[in-house]
Amino acid sequence: MLSHNQIKYINSLKIKKYRYQHNAFFVEGEKGVAELLKSTLHIVKVFALREWIDANYSLLENRKTEIQEITPDELKKVSDLLSPNLVIAVADIPMQELPDISGFNSMMLALDGIRDPGNMGTIIRTADWFGINKIVCSSDSVDVYNPKVVQATMGSFSRVEVFYVDLLEFFSRLPSTIPVFGALLDGPDISEKSFRKKGIILIGSESHGISEKLVPFVNEPVYIPHFMANTSANYAESLNASIANGIICYEICKQLYKNII
Amino acid sequence: MLSHNQIKYINSLKIKKYRYQHNAFFVEGEKGVAELLKSTLHIVKVFALREWIDANYSLLENRKTEIQEITPDELKKVSDLLSPNLVIAVADIPMQELPDISGFNSMMLALDGIRDPGNMGTIIRTADWFGINKIVCSSDSVDVYNPKVVQATMGSFSRVEVFYVDLLEFFSRLPSTIPVFGALLDGPDISEKSFRKKGIILIGSESHGISEKLVPFVNEPVYIPHFMANTSANYAESLNASIANGIICYEICKQLYKNII
Repeated sequence: MLSHNQIKYINSLKIKKYRYQHNAFFVEGEKGVAELLKSTLHIVKVFALREWIDANYSLLENRKTEIQEITPDELKKVSDLLSPNLVIAVADIPMQELPDISGFNSMMLALDGIRDPGNMGTIIRTADWFGINKIVCSSDSVDVYNPKVVQATMGSFSRVEVFYVDLLEFFSRLPSTIPVFGALLDGPDISEKSFRKKGIILIGSESHGISEKLVPFVNEPVYIPHFMANTSANYAESLNASIANGIICYEICKQLYKNII
Repeated sequence: MLSHNQIKYINSLKIKKYRYQHNAFFVEGEKGVAELLKSTLHIVKVFALREWIDANYSLLENRKTEIQEITPDELKKVSDLLSPNLVIAVADIPMQELPDISGFNSMMLALDGIRDPGNMGTIIRTADWFGINKIVCSSDSVDVYNPKVVQATMGSFSRVEVFYVDLLEFFSRLPSTIPVFGALLDGPDISEKSFRKKGIILIGSESHGISEKLVPFVNEPVYIPHFMANTSANYAESLNASIANGIICYEICKQLYKNII
């Protein structure tokens, strides 16, 4: 059973201030907890219904994680989901150090003011799909350990490192030889560009796009066209930030890695 | 001011049953209402703060729409947003008839059990971006006039027609010469395929992908690869449905329309 203090503790982790005070976050649902158990993250405790414990005995044996059986009613008291699942796990927020970018040679994302937890989680999941495992975010972006972000990553939170930085300072220190890809309305058609060098994909916020102060750092601007022959028609004014990110990751990674093999 | 009955009426439109009983839905926020006013949809009434009315006088003049001034406190009582905006408008649900598909020659989406309002709205917005203005959905997909779907479309609800059908029956009647594109795990690499004929992109549900009973209708299977050279690494198990849709729309529309021009 869950004590009153445990309920209070887990619920406090829904708020950013307390997550960083306790240096802990929680993961809910079978998929997320399975990925957590496979990861190297330090797990504080798993709280699960009998049903889940019985079905995941081998997973738990390998990990030697402390486990506590709870009831469906207790799970409801701490869940962040409308339909609570079978399990919730508390883990430490890992210590991460931003890697040295002077000799940088991989793909990375930079997120400028992504506020929506669903968008943030989906962007992390997409990055993971394309093998991009480092993301830098402006400090006004939503916290990666927000339960709704963790949920939307579908387990990818365990494989992608997210760093909160001052993006202006970050790009100022970045060697100018490193490509910075960014969607700009007057950029060239992405499908006609050649990408031969790894770099950083900069994604702007849902409402304002890439900040004016960061635009000068975009040395590889791109534009996702409508393609349709009928240019006088009305179209959506913009793409959702996570969709634009998905298409840019797809096109750049396709060209980069297909040419490497 | 908003009467008690008006508050009750607008709030009832948050529930699907009452939307179809009253044959009406609502649109909230400046962007959505601006797109509604530009559309041919029949607007029942616009409820707005003084500030919005003063700023949008010309937009209202053109449309001759009935307008009622309300206060911020009144807006809060009917809003579906955490931070209520300046305006909310009630419009009729339009009568739509599924077009004849025997001589079908355009791009269309088919959504199989998309339940998440954010995903549905984003898919509609992406379709609109690429000039796809017809979507068929299985009847267990979320309703397009759900306020959270309308919000996520960012105005595209006014340009894209969404039909709820029995997808099994729909695909059974579809001439087999029409391409049906669908993401399948054992499909060929989408970036190596040639697309020369318009057709229907079938997107599976968030949790189960394309239903088993619909898989046989996919005559143009595709797969979005990880691309990374390191094939032994762990990646996300799947992409979010709206991201997969975005990448498939991008790749197919790129090839189709670039070759037509």
